[in-house]
Amino acid sequence: MPRMRSAERRAQLMRVATSLFARHGYEATTTAMIARTARVTEPILYRHFSSKQALFVAIVQDMSDQTMRQWEQLTEGLDDPAARLRRIADHLPQHMRRMADAYHVLHGALAASRDPAVHAVLRQHYREIEAFFARLVSDGQASGAFTRGVDPRAAAWQLIFSGIGYAMIALNLDRLDRKLIDEVIAALVRGIKA
Amino acid sequence: MPRMRSAERRAQLMRVATSLFARHGYEATTTAMIARTARVTEPILYRHFSSKQALFVAIVQDMSDQTMRQWEQLTEGLDDPAARLRRIADHLPQHMRRMADAYHVLHGALAASRDPAVHAVLRQHYREIEAFFARLVSDGQASGAFTRGVDPRAAAWQLIFSGIGYAMIALNLDRLDRKLIDEVIAALVRGIKA
Repeated sequence: MPRMRSAERRAQLMRVATSLFARHGYEATTTAMIARTARVTEPILYRHFSSKQALFVAIVQDMSDQTMRQWEQLTEGLDDPAARLRRIADHLPQHMRRMADAYHVLHGALAASRDPAVHAVLRQHYREIEAFFARLVSDGQASGAFTRGVDPRAAAWQLIFSGIGYAMIALNLDRLDRKLIDEVIAALVRGIKA
Repeated sequence: MPRMRSAERRAQLMRVATSLFARHGYEATTTAMIARTARVTEPILYRHFSSKQALFVAIVQDMSDQTMRQWEQLTEGLDDPAARLRRIADHLPQHMRRMADAYHVLHGALAASRDPAVHAVLRQHYREIEAFFARLVSDGQASGAFTRGVDPRAAAWQLIFSGIGYAMIALNLDRLDRKLIDEVIAALVRGIKA
């Protein structure tokens, strides 16, 4: 395999680690397995990531960045906050399928890890999503689209809870039919509408 | 240790297995570990449960039964379906803390297991909860408390998603403050109210 540039190698190691963490779990995956699958030596892996933990942190940060970017793009040009929320919710199933391995890693770690560094990056991830949705809900309250009876932070957490629960079922157990999902989204939006 | 009667031994093995699955994960726990921790031989364990899988199935079924029983008790004598829903939601944090180990086992398996027998009992668990909430929502539609604009199954799944997401955060990452939880519940109920 020809030598890769540093940024490419870093991205490749993150892809390989995501797929191994998703398949075998974070605990059961070793840096030796990651290096072998990526066809590099462990010292080369360590040049890019100081530990398995550092790889996990980079994967979750990248996932947060990608999610924020995609949601910004999806909602660009939509003025109505309710329409912005519906657009994001409508795209959630395909967003999650595209990043299915990363979601497996995230939720597997959330369910099983007791590592403080893992918890810290998970907290950071949810804080970003909380801030995004709380802003969207505040905008909707200012424009009169959403009720002022709901704390924007509470609305944000309701959306986060629903997203986690949906991913846990849809990615691991059963894809639910689209009509049902649309009705769930409608009820969610109705809960915060003015 | 004096000999236990069969039903007591069965219950003890389930308690021990729940705690080991919660601590080490379902995959990493062996029947040998369960037998040793319960201070019995493996043949005695196998007299009660034919496999680790059978123990898992029994744990999840017991969890479903306990949940249904608790929700029936909590809502006994409450006529208003919205009040019944609020009562169950209000008690969810303490219900989950009391059964925290069982929830860890359930969500750990949901996030990581690919075992068809594990999936089958998880499906059965969620079907029972779906049926319970769908009936509650139908009752509320009949009495005029809830909007007929929501499919009771969709409302049930929204409640399930929210419960899973809440448990994943509250049991693993951060207890959220009670006021925030109350606001999330209020928004959930508002989403299906008439």
